[in-house]
Amino acid sequence: MSSVRGIFAPIATAFDASGEVDYKVYVENVEAFGKTKLAGLVILGSNGEFTMLSHEEKVKLVEVARKHLPADKKVIAGTGCESLKETVELTKECADVGAEVALVVTPHYYKRDMNEGALEKFYTMLADASPIPVMLYNMPGNAGINIPSSLTVKLSKHPNIKGIKDSGGNIVQISEVLAKAPEGFSMFAGSGSFLLATLMLGGVGGTLAVANVVPNYCAEIQEHYEKGDLATARKMQLALLPLNAAVTSRFGIGGMKAAMDLVGYKGGLPRLPILPASVETRGEIARILKELNIPTV
Amino acid sequence: MSSVRGIFAPIATAFDASGEVDYKVYVENVEAFGKTKLAGLVILGSNGEFTMLSHEEKVKLVEVARKHLPADKKVIAGTGCESLKETVELTKECADVGAEVALVVTPHYYKRDMNEGALEKFYTMLADASPIPVMLYNMPGNAGINIPSSLTVKLSKHPNIKGIKDSGGNIVQISEVLAKAPEGFSMFAGSGSFLLATLMLGGVGGTLAVANVVPNYCAEIQEHYEKGDLATARKMQLALLPLNAAVTSRFGIGGMKAAMDLVGYKGGLPRLPILPASVETRGEIARILKELNIPTV
Amino acid sequence: MSSVRGIFAPIATAFDASGEVDYKVYVENVEAFGKTKLAGLVILGSNGEFTMLSHEEKVKLVEVARKHLPADKKVIAGTGCESLKETVELTKECADVGAEVALVVTPHYYKRDMNEGALEKFYTMLADASPIPVMLYNMPGNAGINIPSSLTVKLSKHPNIKGIKDSGGNIVQISEVLAKAPEGFSMFAGSGSFLLATLMLGGVGGTLAVANVVPNYCAEIQEHYEKGDLATARKMQLALLPLNAAVTSRFGIGGMKAAMDLVGYKGGLPRLPILPASVETRGEIARILKELNIPTV
Amino acid sequence: MSSVRGIFAPIATAFDASGEVDYKVYVENVEAFGKTKLAGLVILGSNGEFTMLSHEEKVKLVEVARKHLPADKKVIAGTGCESLKETVELTKECADVGAEVALVVTPHYYKRDMNEGALEKFYTMLADASPIPVMLYNMPGNAGINIPSSLTVKLSKHPNIKGIKDSGGNIVQISEVLAKAPEGFSMFAGSGSFLLATLMLGGVGGTLAVANVVPNYCAEIQEHYEKGDLATARKMQLALLPLNAAVTSRFGIGGMKAAMDLVGYKGGLPRLPILPASVETRGEIARILKELNIPTV
Repeated sequence: MSSVRGIFAPIATAFDASGEVDYKVYVENVEAFGKTKLAGLVILGSNGEFTMLSHEEKVKLVEVARKHLPADKKVIAGTGCESLKETVELTKECADVGAEVALVVTPHYYKRDMNEGALEKFYTMLADASPIPVMLYNMPGNAGINIPSSLTVKLSKHPNIKGIKDSGGNIVQISEVLAKAPEGFSMFAGSGSFLLATLMLGGVGGTLAVANVVPNYCAEIQEHYEKGDLATARKMQLALLPLNAAVTSRFGIGGMKAAMDLVGYKGGLPRLPILPASVETRGEIARILKELNIPTV
Repeated sequence: MSSVRGIFAPIATAFDASGEVDYKVYVENVEAFGKTKLAGLVILGSNGEFTMLSHEEKVKLVEVARKHLPADKKVIAGTGCESLKETVELTKECADVGAEVALVVTPHYYKRDMNEGALEKFYTMLADASPIPVMLYNMPGNAGINIPSSLTVKLSKHPNIKGIKDSGGNIVQISEVLAKAPEGFSMFAGSGSFLLATLMLGGVGGTLAVANVVPNYCAEIQEHYEKGDLATARKMQLALLPLNAAVTSRFGIGGMKAAMDLVGYKGGLPRLPILPASVETRGEIARILKELNIPTV
Repeated sequence: MSSVRGIFAPIATAFDASGEVDYKVYVENVEAFGKTKLAGLVILGSNGEFTMLSHEEKVKLVEVARKHLPADKKVIAGTGCESLKETVELTKECADVGAEVALVVTPHYYKRDMNEGALEKFYTMLADASPIPVMLYNMPGNAGINIPSSLTVKLSKHPNIKGIKDSGGNIVQISEVLAKAPEGFSMFAGSGSFLLATLMLGGVGGTLAVANVVPNYCAEIQEHYEKGDLATARKMQLALLPLNAAVTSRFGIGGMKAAMDLVGYKGGLPRLPILPASVETRGEIARILKELNIPTV
Repeated sequence: MSSVRGIFAPIATAFDASGEVDYKVYVENVEAFGKTKLAGLVILGSNGEFTMLSHEEKVKLVEVARKHLPADKKVIAGTGCESLKETVELTKECADVGAEVALVVTPHYYKRDMNEGALEKFYTMLADASPIPVMLYNMPGNAGINIPSSLTVKLSKHPNIKGIKDSGGNIVQISEVLAKAPEGFSMFAGSGSFLLATLMLGGVGGTLAVANVVPNYCAEIQEHYEKGDLATARKMQLALLPLNAAVTSRFGIGGMKAAMDLVGYKGGLPRLPILPASVETRGEIARILKELNIPTV
């Protein structure tokens, strides 16, 4: 059975008006998520604005999360950097402060250089060096690079590479990995819009921006599916689509943070140049939440 | 219940060495497919090389198919042209010779002009004029244009627009249509690689290049799924991926025709400039068929 | 010296309210263009809505143009179709009615099959069979396919392939062809926005949508450049950009036809599903023409 | 007259076998470039592997370059980071150690959030805070984001934004900026393949990977053009294309470093996961250099 499974929220990093990390608000969110059905949190995910954070802020956010999250919930840290050197260093430091899994995005600025050989070397050397299991993080929408299924399958045989979060949503690619990766290699949906499709084909979890807004709703899609109630799971999946789009493709980080505010979590401000959601966007998100019968504060 | 459902093969058009349609071979294929579990045939689909055919050849191919296919199997005709004028004319002529549904690809050469307003007008005026039900055909891979889910949902309310074949494989877009289109609007997978995912989310069939090669295998995925045996359906779906890729994304029309030859149907030559599969490609496809335990001739 | 050179307008095909070709209006345009500095006309270009026309309409439009255009102006016919068969037939028929050059777009619907081998075979067999010189037509924006510079260079050695119209606007690719194609192979800019850049690197002409609106202005950019007045050529080129964008990327065929109407040519209606320009678009185009000091009617 | 003009090399950052910056080799390159016709160096450019470097390494590389470069050659520092906060900090620190201009790439990981409003705010706030002039850096190939010409024109009015390096190579976009930006706003070509086209339309310089290999050759293209010898400039530009492609699109950073080694500069190793050029690639680059009559060591 897969060691990493269930629904994770890639927790938002709250910033205050001066642009500094607001750890107080962050801890409130961590503690609130600790009382949900989530399997754990991803710290330093794309939705955690990890590229906006200094190395030191990153490690501290992981440490604080581990301290405030119940022991039965996992802490996954997003430790991918452009260089292998910094990725290894950050992974070790995050492991030292309690991260249980490293979720590692593809280096991507040098797209022409990031051929399969380079990516294979990167992940293999990292997995060799990492004290904790590594999950691949395929994020073509932001990174502009895709990990082909053939490479994922090859890497899935490494004893310290335990899964992949695929945010591309290419269900054929996801299927190709599920067809050939070893038992126990965890396939995670990277967005709430294709969670059920991923689960039905053999996936075991998801790391979903929308789980920052409706964590239990997301976890219940998996619950219903796994106990055989496909009809309810499908109904919930289809109904979730507008909210999922609002906090990802339509309104980005600003939209996700606004949605968190609306349901009682603390989104806070994004770090510049990411802009907070406009008043109109907040209104539209409130409307979508209402349509889904999610109470707003 | 959806009036159009089940697995269809977009039957290949066989050409002889002089580049003419080989109707004799074509009829053999039609008759052979008539004995399978297919729900029917799509004539003039992308895999039928419809853009390579003259208007007259198109109508004749539909007529011949209807004549040689058992009455309980449907004939769907691909009648989309760049102009509304020719599309309406061809749709009427195909209906006259027995087509029961028109599958209509987006006009696409004038990508900048094919905005939502133009596409909405095109499909609405066509559906108003067509004597037979219209299915939308979303084929971004070839057409370079995508029908957004919002437009599909809007068009799904037209009484003479009965479904969509979506070949894009964007499972989120497929889900968005399934969430909002009326009961009875048929969602078809446009490729064998995401057939099961589409069915599980509410789809009712598929028009699959790979059904020209393994029609019963494809139909059985749907059978297993619909009788509740998700495990077998999933296993078959995952095992089908390499063959599906070989006859679509990897080797195109030439590959599909070679695969038909290998299993005992008659692929024949493509029309130039489409090239037949190379010897190496045929060998690779034979290898893939063997891996799937499909007997070759 | 290149046998084909100078500025050509890809003449619009006027349609009447019933959707039929309006030959009367078309002849008026042909005759009006005959009095300009244009080197000739391209009939059945993208801006001539060639994919909207029947085979018979195509041949007739070429015949009529040749009849009404002064003998010292060239008629180029856009004869590219998806199949080699129809392309050869149409090229011969157009040559029979007076076309002096065939401008042949890449077949493109079967993008996966249109690899370099297929395109090379297509153009080589066509050039072998064609009674008139062939120009390649690279139109990635509409066709979704690009002719790589290496293939253009290879084809440029064919004795009956005399040039290329490149509408992609990739100035590096254009340069690569100019660096290696034989003397006398004509490089044409495919849009007015990169006409001067193409000329300065060694191009000899252009086929420009905007030449349907301001033919003399376009021809004068080349005149100034060729007589060594780079400063005036550059000034005119830069000033032309907003109008060029309006009749291509911003407002498409509908916009180009509206601009023709505004300056005294006859755009007429597009054929459905292409929509005519809206009132707002017409106003915006009028504003742009005014800024460029082009009198409107 | 533009304050920033001429050809700059985006100097490579040499790494040793242990992955550390090799400052000794770096200084040798800086000093060697100091004796060329280059107008200066860009430190921390894409070709300097800036995303692979720590904040501290970045500042030190600028400091060292300024110390070893003749005073009449400019030092431009690539100070763009994902957050405005770090970008401002790094810009100030680089200015403190001698950078005379900041070249600032678009933040790009959060592509959906990096709309025009966000980019405008980012560059405006940065330019307000920066003690040195800012140049925009448009690098769609790596960043996956394009600065539209309308935004560049708007930003060009800011008194502390002095130019743009455009690496996208879209000559129409470059033209649109040149048509509307104020006198004195410097347009730089971002690659050697479209240097001359940019100059001819009004550009004043370039920052070119290939200038790390053949600095004087690149500078002489501009010299010939500016003294009116367009024919020689064009001939050199066209001949440069294969080498330029080899050190950018074909073989990336590894290729550029290998080419530097071949001509007597010191490329050194890239930082992992960027891989050094293979033996075959080195051979191909040597062949290309030979064709261009560049002596190799």
